[in-house]
Amino acid sequence: MPSELPLPRSAAEALDAADPLRGFRDRFTLPEGVLYLDGNSLGALPAHTPAHISRMVEQEWGGGLIRSWNEAGWYDLPRGLGDRIAPLVGAAAGQTVVCDSTSVNLFKVLTTALRLRPERRAIVSELGSFPTDLYLTEGAAPAHERRLISRDGDTLRELDELLDQDVAVVLLSHVDYRTGRLQDMAAVTELIHRHGALVVWDLCHSVGALPVRLDACDADFAVGCTYKYLNGGPGSPAFLYAAERHHDRAEQPLTGWFGHADPFAFEPGYRPAPGIGRFLTGTPPLLSLAGLAAALDLWQDVDLGALRAKSLALTSLFLQLTEPLGLPSLTPAEPSERGSQVSLRHPQAYPVMQALIERGLIGDFRAPDVLRFGFTPLYLSHAQVWDAAEALRDVLATGVWREPRFAAAAGAVT
Amino acid sequence: MPSELPLPRSAAEALDAADPLRGFRDRFTLPEGVLYLDGNSLGALPAHTPAHISRMVEQEWGGGLIRSWNEAGWYDLPRGLGDRIAPLVGAAAGQTVVCDSTSVNLFKVLTTALRLRPERRAIVSELGSFPTDLYLTEGAAPAHERRLISRDGDTLRELDELLDQDVAVVLLSHVDYRTGRLQDMAAVTELIHRHGALVVWDLCHSVGALPVRLDACDADFAVGCTYKYLNGGPGSPAFLYAAERHHDRAEQPLTGWFGHADPFAFEPGYRPAPGIGRFLTGTPPLLSLAGLAAALDLWQDVDLGALRAKSLALTSLFLQLTEPLGLPSLTPAEPSERGSQVSLRHPQAYPVMQALIERGLIGDFRAPDVLRFGFTPLYLSHAQVWDAAEALRDVLATGVWREPRFAAAAGAVT
Repeated sequence: MPSELPLPRSAAEALDAADPLRGFRDRFTLPEGVLYLDGNSLGALPAHTPAHISRMVEQEWGGGLIRSWNEAGWYDLPRGLGDRIAPLVGAAAGQTVVCDSTSVNLFKVLTTALRLRPERRAIVSELGSFPTDLYLTEGAAPAHERRLISRDGDTLRELDELLDQDVAVVLLSHVDYRTGRLQDMAAVTELIHRHGALVVWDLCHSVGALPVRLDACDADFAVGCTYKYLNGGPGSPAFLYAAERHHDRAEQPLTGWFGHADPFAFEPGYRPAPGIGRFLTGTPPLLSLAGLAAALDLWQDVDLGALRAKSLALTSLFLQLTEPLGLPSLTPAEPSERGSQVSLRHPQAYPVMQALIERGLIGDFRAPDVLRFGFTPLYLSHAQVWDAAEALRDVLATGVWREPRFAAAAGAVT
Repeated sequence: MPSELPLPRSAAEALDAADPLRGFRDRFTLPEGVLYLDGNSLGALPAHTPAHISRMVEQEWGGGLIRSWNEAGWYDLPRGLGDRIAPLVGAAAGQTVVCDSTSVNLFKVLTTALRLRPERRAIVSELGSFPTDLYLTEGAAPAHERRLISRDGDTLRELDELLDQDVAVVLLSHVDYRTGRLQDMAAVTELIHRHGALVVWDLCHSVGALPVRLDACDADFAVGCTYKYLNGGPGSPAFLYAAERHHDRAEQPLTGWFGHADPFAFEPGYRPAPGIGRFLTGTPPLLSLAGLAAALDLWQDVDLGALRAKSLALTSLFLQLTEPLGLPSLTPAEPSERGSQVSLRHPQAYPVMQALIERGLIGDFRAPDVLRFGFTPLYLSHAQVWDAAEALRDVLATGVWREPRFAAAAGAVT
């Protein structure tokens, strides 16, 4: 085990001095003494969010009461916040809504896609994908044949072998939650379309970490999470994208009143809203939407090109600094194939991560042997990447993770 | 039009002096100059809620970050808050969860119930029920035969005529959102079971307004809203009840990771949680759950018998005071058939309600001709009921509602 890292901290500090995004760090409230490399599980608190939420609670709810549905614009939030997320995922307006959880939205878009290909009886997803994606293919397509590609193989080749006229839908993660591998959305979508199938992209680990180009890639449907890189707050509602060309024929079964063409006419029969609105279902959780609205105020100032450049600089630096430690990396070395995280393997990853957490470095553990470090370009510096690498070096060099108090297993949340 | 109400305000004030719930008024923050009779659309802000939410945002999210899933008990909230609602709906522990919207939960319980009666091909609901209930029967049971009872007829007789061996499920509102009529849950449930069908009760307009006795009535499933009488905040997540006897065989299609038996094992296949947990789907919106948690702190001090007694006193007083105005009432005169609202008909109900709102009395309008007044026993006094009746008398006597500015139509939200 090396006694020091291959670069001095001053090299990282020099990169910070030239970082065009360094001003964003002050727009977040982070606890003292914590090096937070888990923004890909739960994003940090934007500094202005508490005041935004307090105002919503005290003035809009407490003062405005029911009037705020119109006067404070609550009713427009699912579509309005969707249109504010749209530039982050490369979508023209009117194709994105914020509502429900990623899981519920997966059910909606999978069901819709299957109904658009009623003669096809198979669904393709990834072995080892984030489990809720796999579980929802069971729930949404209980009678369909299930086919799986691996998530670390040659995706285009594997898909080309699996796709045929029976495949209705392919559900893929844009960035894999475990390895951080980034798919080539344009090439994969094109291949799926060539076989007549539809694609659903899960953007949970790419939105807010890198530019996404749904329209340019001709994607059909997408879902994504707003509480990771977008910093919307714990459990903040998810988003759902449906390409405009599918709107008129889209039929999703969660036919609640918010998806009705005229929710306040109280018509006895369901008549879906024109456009993306038909993917809404019930009354949205407005306090949680307020947290997301505050976070999106911050995103409107972010240049996505600079974001991607810094993300790759951070992950490349961490890979470079930790390479001498000898832990196998699950994350692609090639930058263009990488999201904004680094996953390293260690046979005792759980106690190692516990020892890091005790030192103030919060990353997370993924069974059975993965140390996962998320790098959020808006609030992490290159110097912190150096500190994280040094913490890992030190924990491994001292063997502190072998102490019994780090051995207990516990739950964790992505 | 009478020039004064049939009782002096002092009579109402005397009732307030003897009101055992009068202390609760100070536990809410209500805007000055507003007489709020719309707590059945959106409940008022409990006074301690802003501090509760701020603490959650700043300490649990901002300070605790991802650690709060375990350390702040976030992960347990869907079940924990469900068990705190359970006494309000007459449910033993372990049968209620808080999650998603009422609409999404309706989809889950309707689908589950239909799968428990696979040989039966009809579903019964109410003509004129709250629209999302009707829409969800379409979404959850697109191929089932649809049968409707009226909502103001003899429910037991109508059901007895409609029910046969083809009926799988009956979906009913415990209290009708428009008329305020209360169903006899015990008798109706017993009749439905006698025909071999299952019942789903919509408790949106009864929970927090009167005692509900799901277990004692042998109910099968129920859903309900937490942002009306429970005061959980705008769009706060709904609850779902499933009787324990159905848990083992319950299969709902929204098979997200939060409903898995071991969500953090990241197993490739879906394996439903034992018990009520299998009705969970995705990551819950925690800011909105924090609002509900604060509201439930208040409910633990409420005696439901006193609540019901005051509710009936308020609605009876309003009916008595407004009877000379000559507006036909949609709300049953018989107290045992009444929820906690009064609905009066007026051919120009929309401008009349707008004129009332301008005077500071917030109720709502339901097309085509209904003035709806909700009476929340925790923060309304008898004197305010008198003030409301006087406002209505005055608006009708002066004809101010005929002024052109009150004529425009607008949206409204229950």
